[in-house]
Amino acid sequence: MTTATIPAAPATTAHTAAPAFTADPTVHRVLTGDRPTGPLHLGHYFGTLQNRVRLQRQGVEMFVVIADYQVITDRDSADRLAEHTENLVLDYLAAGLDPDRATIFTHSAVPALNQLLLPFLSLVSVSELSRNPTVKDEIAHSGQAAVNGLMFTYPVHQAADILFCKANLVPVGQDQLPHLEVARTVARRFNERYPHADGSAVFPRPEALLSDAPLLLGTDGGKMSKSRGNAVSLGATEDETARLIRGAKTDTDRRIGYDPVNRPEVASLVLLAALCQDRTPEEIAAELGDGGSAVLKRTVTESVNEFLRPMRDRRAELATDRGYLRQVLRDGAERANAVADATLAEVRAVMGSI
Amino acid sequence: MTTATIPAAPATTAHTAAPAFTADPTVHRVLTGDRPTGPLHLGHYFGTLQNRVRLQRQGVEMFVVIADYQVITDRDSADRLAEHTENLVLDYLAAGLDPDRATIFTHSAVPALNQLLLPFLSLVSVSELSRNPTVKDEIAHSGQAAVNGLMFTYPVHQAADILFCKANLVPVGQDQLPHLEVARTVARRFNERYPHADGSAVFPRPEALLSDAPLLLGTDGGKMSKSRGNAVSLGATEDETARLIRGAKTDTDRRIGYDPVNRPEVASLVLLAALCQDRTPEEIAAELGDGGSAVLKRTVTESVNEFLRPMRDRRAELATDRGYLRQVLRDGAERANAVADATLAEVRAVMGSI
Repeated sequence: MTTATIPAAPATTAHTAAPAFTADPTVHRVLTGDRPTGPLHLGHYFGTLQNRVRLQRQGVEMFVVIADYQVITDRDSADRLAEHTENLVLDYLAAGLDPDRATIFTHSAVPALNQLLLPFLSLVSVSELSRNPTVKDEIAHSGQAAVNGLMFTYPVHQAADILFCKANLVPVGQDQLPHLEVARTVARRFNERYPHADGSAVFPRPEALLSDAPLLLGTDGGKMSKSRGNAVSLGATEDETARLIRGAKTDTDRRIGYDPVNRPEVASLVLLAALCQDRTPEEIAAELGDGGSAVLKRTVTESVNEFLRPMRDRRAELATDRGYLRQVLRDGAERANAVADATLAEVRAVMGSI
Repeated sequence: MTTATIPAAPATTAHTAAPAFTADPTVHRVLTGDRPTGPLHLGHYFGTLQNRVRLQRQGVEMFVVIADYQVITDRDSADRLAEHTENLVLDYLAAGLDPDRATIFTHSAVPALNQLLLPFLSLVSVSELSRNPTVKDEIAHSGQAAVNGLMFTYPVHQAADILFCKANLVPVGQDQLPHLEVARTVARRFNERYPHADGSAVFPRPEALLSDAPLLLGTDGGKMSKSRGNAVSLGATEDETARLIRGAKTDTDRRIGYDPVNRPEVASLVLLAALCQDRTPEEIAAELGDGGSAVLKRTVTESVNEFLRPMRDRRAELATDRGYLRQVLRDGAERANAVADATLAEVRAVMGSI
């Protein structure tokens, strides 16, 4: 697989260097998105959101799918789905996504996109689906004895998310590469089996834009996660932020250093302050010297709150107008539907459907 | 499962008896359909088409899905799909389906129907899908080493076909009962998990209208099948019909009898003549006496050709206007889309999608 690599966020050692990859608006079309399962946090911001804003600034056409049906792949209800969806839009807009430039939509509002699942499923074998490592992993993580059909076919649905808009560039983490590989396989097989009359291909083969995301840990030292309550959400108050960071796991060494291997919790806090201040973690560590955990946490809290302040102000302002958030989704759905309808018409034509 | 039983065609022993089941237009809504894989033959006519015309006459609302995506569940291309689809419409109309009363449509033209596959897949486990006997059987029959995802999820897609229009009555053969059971399970689980605010259910639980189809064999003594060239298609010429029946397998006993157990090939020919003449097979056999195979075949040929003549005349007339056939599909798709859009809106609302 061809991958283009850009730092998703400032790299930890040379984070002020220019991005290694610059998207070309005349060539690239990006698909990205999230499941609406809860508020976005700092890990999402430095891992992907910042990147999307950068791609938007480069003028690339971008589709942002709110994968609402994928919420029910590993849970038994779609509880608070509307609320989570609206809040996701809020996080996007607060972080700098511009709904006039990026098409933000829920995939359940785009039937022609979902229909693509059917021809695509015919191109992938059950044994290929069973072997997908990310699906295997998610099955293990969700703890379900009986895996449901939606989780099982989820990479093929993601292929539909990517291909409906003919995205050719998909920002992914290393763990999502197998999913993207399914989309690439589906595109290749579809193009081979159902070419246009002139031999040309319907779908591009999407490439990974492999993010070099910084390793930010949760305040408990584990993986940052919406559901574990160990992450500072973008919309948290300054007090909530302070409380969470105050309770973060550190160690008893008063000397602050940046050593991700031997002192991962302290290193993660240092890195967080560095990302927020747009400096290197080594600089931050040197500055904190022998201050110990209390000083480190105070610095991190201040850095995070300062960094997020404009985002939170904008978020609070937008939050007063839920009607606007729904309008953003309606507009996005309208644009996504136009694109999906055109792609589906093309797919039906090459397949010979009436 | 509750099943209502009607003779799909005149029963072999008392075929002039009144149908045991009469549909109620104020209660019943029927979903039925076919895969567009080739011309319909006499087995289809006496097995299902005649029944549909009867239900239509009873004033029941009926949706007839041409399952074009299901063509690619067990073959590698959608070769001649448009042609097969048009010819299926031709067979329907010739047999007496009225496109002003029955909604005839291809399911690939109804995205909101196909979208239902996604929430429905979340309600069925992979092990349930693996256990479905009809899928198992079709996998064995298709001879594919690697089963594709579309065949694997096919009963869930059929559930979407049935439930998008809230059909509560589905004419099926015994072998399709496990598929209908999937649709019933999906309806029950969806209703439990996502009730309306007032507690009412979104979907009916569809019931089987179990057909008592006559056992007509192919001219080679095997199962009648489009692909085996052993069946008289509705649109065949009189000469083609004569040639096919002349080559039919019989036996050397000059005495014609109706003994499906010991002389299945002869019995099937006798039954075919009886169905076409609307008489009992015993009457036909008695009449033929010691005439032997040649007389039997001549009688069957004449009966079939006479029976199909008005249907074939109508078919030939309709065949000259392919534009009309496509218009029937466009009109059907428009009606089916309106129904599917309304059902999907209801589904999205109870699930909390924006």
